[in-house]
Amino acid sequence: MDLMVLAPIGAALALIFALYKGIKISKMEEGTQEVKDIAKKIRIGANAYLRRQYKGVGLFFIAMFILLFVLGCMGYVSIFVPFAFITGGVFSGLSGFIGMKIATLANSRTTTACTKSLNKGLKVAFSSGAVMGFVVVGFGLLDLSIWYYILDWYYRALPVAERVVNITSTMLTFGMGASTMALFARVGGGIFTKAADVGADLVGKVEAGIPEDDPRNPAVIADNVGDNVGDVAGMGADLYESYVGAVLSSCVLAVSAGLSLSGVMIPLVVAATGVIASIIGSFFVKTGEEVSQKKLLSALRRGVYIAAALIVGVSYFIVTGVLGNEYIGIYFSIISGLVAGIGIGFFAEYYTNSSYKPTKHIAESSTTGSATVIITGLSVGMLSTAVPVIIVGISVIVSFILSGGMENFNLGLYGIAISAVGMLSTLGITLATDAYGPVADNAGGIAEMAGLDPEVRKRTDALDSLGNTTAATGKGFAIGSAALTALAFIAAYKDSIELLVQKNNIDFAFNLSLLNPQVLIGLFIGGMATFVFAAFTMNAVGNAASKIVLEVRRQFKEITGLMEGKAEPDYASCVDICTKAAQKELIKVALIGIGTPLVVGLLLGPNGVAGLLAGATTTGFILAVMMANSGGAWDNAKKYIEEGNFGGKGSDSHKAAVVGDTVGDPFKDTAGPAINIIIKLMAMVSIVFGMFILTWHIF
Amino acid sequence: MDLMVLAPIGAALALIFALYKGIKISKMEEGTQEVKDIAKKIRIGANAYLRRQYKGVGLFFIAMFILLFVLGCMGYVSIFVPFAFITGGVFSGLSGFIGMKIATLANSRTTTACTKSLNKGLKVAFSSGAVMGFVVVGFGLLDLSIWYYILDWYYRALPVAERVVNITSTMLTFGMGASTMALFARVGGGIFTKAADVGADLVGKVEAGIPEDDPRNPAVIADNVGDNVGDVAGMGADLYESYVGAVLSSCVLAVSAGLSLSGVMIPLVVAATGVIASIIGSFFVKTGEEVSQKKLLSALRRGVYIAAALIVGVSYFIVTGVLGNEYIGIYFSIISGLVAGIGIGFFAEYYTNSSYKPTKHIAESSTTGSATVIITGLSVGMLSTAVPVIIVGISVIVSFILSGGMENFNLGLYGIAISAVGMLSTLGITLATDAYGPVADNAGGIAEMAGLDPEVRKRTDALDSLGNTTAATGKGFAIGSAALTALAFIAAYKDSIELLVQKNNIDFAFNLSLLNPQVLIGLFIGGMATFVFAAFTMNAVGNAASKIVLEVRRQFKEITGLMEGKAEPDYASCVDICTKAAQKELIKVALIGIGTPLVVGLLLGPNGVAGLLAGATTTGFILAVMMANSGGAWDNAKKYIEEGNFGGKGSDSHKAAVVGDTVGDPFKDTAGPAINIIIKLMAMVSIVFGMFILTWHIF
Repeated sequence: MDLMVLAPIGAALALIFALYKGIKISKMEEGTQEVKDIAKKIRIGANAYLRRQYKGVGLFFIAMFILLFVLGCMGYVSIFVPFAFITGGVFSGLSGFIGMKIATLANSRTTTACTKSLNKGLKVAFSSGAVMGFVVVGFGLLDLSIWYYILDWYYRALPVAERVVNITSTMLTFGMGASTMALFARVGGGIFTKAADVGADLVGKVEAGIPEDDPRNPAVIADNVGDNVGDVAGMGADLYESYVGAVLSSCVLAVSAGLSLSGVMIPLVVAATGVIASIIGSFFVKTGEEVSQKKLLSALRRGVYIAAALIVGVSYFIVTGVLGNEYIGIYFSIISGLVAGIGIGFFAEYYTNSSYKPTKHIAESSTTGSATVIITGLSVGMLSTAVPVIIVGISVIVSFILSGGMENFNLGLYGIAISAVGMLSTLGITLATDAYGPVADNAGGIAEMAGLDPEVRKRTDALDSLGNTTAATGKGFAIGSAALTALAFIAAYKDSIELLVQKNNIDFAFNLSLLNPQVLIGLFIGGMATFVFAAFTMNAVGNAASKIVLEVRRQFKEITGLMEGKAEPDYASCVDICTKAAQKELIKVALIGIGTPLVVGLLLGPNGVAGLLAGATTTGFILAVMMANSGGAWDNAKKYIEEGNFGGKGSDSHKAAVVGDTVGDPFKDTAGPAINIIIKLMAMVSIVFGMFILTWHIF
Repeated sequence: MDLMVLAPIGAALALIFALYKGIKISKMEEGTQEVKDIAKKIRIGANAYLRRQYKGVGLFFIAMFILLFVLGCMGYVSIFVPFAFITGGVFSGLSGFIGMKIATLANSRTTTACTKSLNKGLKVAFSSGAVMGFVVVGFGLLDLSIWYYILDWYYRALPVAERVVNITSTMLTFGMGASTMALFARVGGGIFTKAADVGADLVGKVEAGIPEDDPRNPAVIADNVGDNVGDVAGMGADLYESYVGAVLSSCVLAVSAGLSLSGVMIPLVVAATGVIASIIGSFFVKTGEEVSQKKLLSALRRGVYIAAALIVGVSYFIVTGVLGNEYIGIYFSIISGLVAGIGIGFFAEYYTNSSYKPTKHIAESSTTGSATVIITGLSVGMLSTAVPVIIVGISVIVSFILSGGMENFNLGLYGIAISAVGMLSTLGITLATDAYGPVADNAGGIAEMAGLDPEVRKRTDALDSLGNTTAATGKGFAIGSAALTALAFIAAYKDSIELLVQKNNIDFAFNLSLLNPQVLIGLFIGGMATFVFAAFTMNAVGNAASKIVLEVRRQFKEITGLMEGKAEPDYASCVDICTKAAQKELIKVALIGIGTPLVVGLLLGPNGVAGLLAGATTTGFILAVMMANSGGAWDNAKKYIEEGNFGGKGSDSHKAAVVGDTVGDPFKDTAGPAINIIIKLMAMVSIVFGMFILTWHIF
């Protein structure tokens, strides 16, 4: 029982470590006046965006709070839900916000550190990533701990078994705030960053023929702002949600699995252990002076692998200590999740790295034009869904069987949920290796714009290019855990509805058979919702990018002396266009996430909702993998050509490859990652509004 | 009981009508010597391709026959299965073959008729489509009738109830031959036609700047051959399979619904009635001389609507006559399918026709380059999945509830199956309006190559452009019926396995709950299989198109006087490249279709297979709709620009739009339509190998 205290301790350690790293970064030398000026512009743009985003999101949260409060007063949801909705949203948003604050401090400092040595550059960028990683896990554990203790106190009069049921079923509803915020941050940030990126590339690189990050390009600051608001703030909020979701789903399934409080402790304690393992691992991230992708990658990987190894060792003692030797299978479930995450990441790299065949094949197809680049890239992405699906499948069946699902079905479902916790246990450090990428990217941009020695740019490029690889690995974890957590949520949904049915004596029984038309139609609608969602986000990027193109063209034409470098472009107008475009879509997107399960629930009842969630999870997972990998592969195929293959920079092949890269941008950084969130948001909404749907559904 | 005789009568009528139309076409005037020469080249290429395809497919069918025969001797499948496999394959192949033979006769005759009047041109092209339509339904009903009477005789000793069970469960396995042949024809033909089309466009239009169908382009004959082997022969085999599949699934579900022989009769008799209704409808297809899209379209639609109205009227008497008034709900199921098919077709037109906003939006996005065209086109396609999914959902729930599924679950499933029969009942004429498109397309090519009066080309263009719209409607029926039939197959699969379990006293019970990990993993793999399948086919098109590009470039360079029109290109080499490329992929594709359910079945058992089928149906349906509509919209956005919008022909916008069209080609004509087939093939394989999987599965 006392082990539970490890959760707030882990939270505190993570936050202290993040604070320590953050202070260290802020004390570093920022660099020349030019570097400072550029960094300031990026910072101002990023802050302006976030201020606006939080204002819009704040209004939405207030509206939802009122709605949930009313529903709470009417007895449709627990009265804690509106408050938990707020804390989840605030912590999720805060994770992204702090991560971004540090990233916009660290970018210039990374540039300046790279003027000295590659190792110093890596250290700064990685530290910035680490702040984000540990803020996410720290806040996640903090939120979970606070509510656990509040509810434990509130329900103190009940006997243990009943208390645990009340605590977990109430806590389960808490992910909704985090999911909503994550969705807004990912989609808003994703639209911003890709609209700027695509717009900047289309006019700058393709039409005007000026290099990337050239200060003459009016969209260049927006592009660098985008790295921060999308790839940093968006990812932070996203993974906060994944982390909390994985733990919550395990907690609630512990009850029906018959594990009671011990089963609730396992995910929290494993997560807390992961924090400590990640801190230890992060001390091993360093490299020498030679600019070699392999060395840099092994530097980062060393940290991740050490953390993973620690988890493998310690969680054995946690499981056997808390649950006893007969539950050793749960331990293997944790490991299977950890291995699956690494496996998915590895294959993501295979499909997106130009050292391997698929990306080379895309690069080669650029010799016959952009149409074949698109066709080949799409088919590589589609093909790349096979292995992750098989890995997730193996992980599901292995964690189900080993945890004892053949004898106790619900224990098997708990095993699946806990495997997602295993996968995310090292999040502190995997996120650090992932979130460092955009910092390095920014650092390169600053070096270019400030006109520093090309050697500096070479170093930041080495860091940046590595960032693409670690991002693929990071996405493996995000995507794999999303699939497992979403599956656990379906089980948790069933549990929570059955609890309501039992408590309120409602006449309802699940028929989750595939042949039940409610389930079947739910499956169809769930799959379709992910496609429609992807369409909305991609369309938003396309539209905003078109606006940026027109604005950049206008500035090139109207501002005299711009192309000669004598006049400065109007950077702020591009930032403004992206900001507005991003905000415009958020309501639509929220409607899909929140409206779909409500409408399906009211029309088709809880069976239809379960079908919806299963359809969204399966189709969404596949679509998300495809989009992430197509996008990554196009990006790297273009880079491969830029390295001098198939005609090199400026050739027709290169132009064709840039088209692929541009299409890939919203795939990999807007629609793809946001799909993971919408799947879980739909599950959360279904759970929170469970009683409402139970009461009012038609069929 | 005697009504059953309507099936062979319907078959005979359809075949006689097709023969009559075919003879009429062959007696028409072919035209000038030049027209004849060009038509001959196309005919030779098409025949060469089909000969080669049937040789390869023949070997595969012999191998499968032996395998099934051995399994039959071992008792794993009924001994009728290997023979039925062959008849299904032969009739399906024959439908495509005859359709193509007539199309390659009709193309030049349509050109020549267009030198006289538009109405005459329409009549020839439509007659050719009608031959195909009626051959498909004729052979379909013939195959079903023959086997019904053979089995009825074979099982004559059994009491009626048991006899019907034996007849239907044996007949159910008969779709596999048709599905296999349809897959080969669709994929092979689809790869051929799109490789030629893409290759011809990439070098001819984009690089060399010569118009479409210019005789100097070495790939131009291959392109016209492709229209015949892909859009005609492929579609014929495809819809044969859909038609037979819909009827078969209804027949087998009639038994568990408790309808026995009367329930088996309904789909057969409705189908037979549909033949007669279609023949009547086809007499109403004619137009005046004014070249107006609207007039032409209403000419074709008049025929379809008259046929549909006849079905609506007559099937009321069939249902009430055969089953009695208490089963009037079955009648409404039939109507709901018919309405759903028309609805899906209508929205397909909305999303792909340049009169409406989505396609215009794509055309507009071409002003900012090919990347935005691709992004916008993909998002239009993804968005367009919403309505068909909702229509299918409504159709499923309506036909389930109205047929009485709330009281008798299995009767509701029968209602879903019969709604697919309703949707396909007018196939004779809907297919005619669909299959006429490629004939008109070819006629235009011949007019261009033979250097006829531009007025002729204008008329064939009017016919061709209309073909794109009717193709969208036709695809609506193909895709909607595939979804409904595939759902019915899942139910039929469960029935057939339960029959085996009961007969052989096997210890197995279905657990089709969404939470069963076997089902869940099956769902994932099913969804993934459709993505991988689409990837293979698209990749094949991309690779073959690249080869065509290189070959055409080579000929342009090496054959002196080619560009000046003084020397003739080597057309045969391009035909050869496409043929080889198409054949190469068939084995891979067959492995996905046949291998996936076997592997999943052996690993995860019948529950996993049911999950697989549900996952493939839902994800596959959505993906197929998206691919069809993106492709159609890109095609028409390009045409819209060619009409003079956003810069018109030759502008940068046009070039960008051509990239979209090129990407769309394998979407709409290779991968998209083939997905419908692979879904049903997987279901068929699961049913045929049901006993084998029951015996040998691991989990």
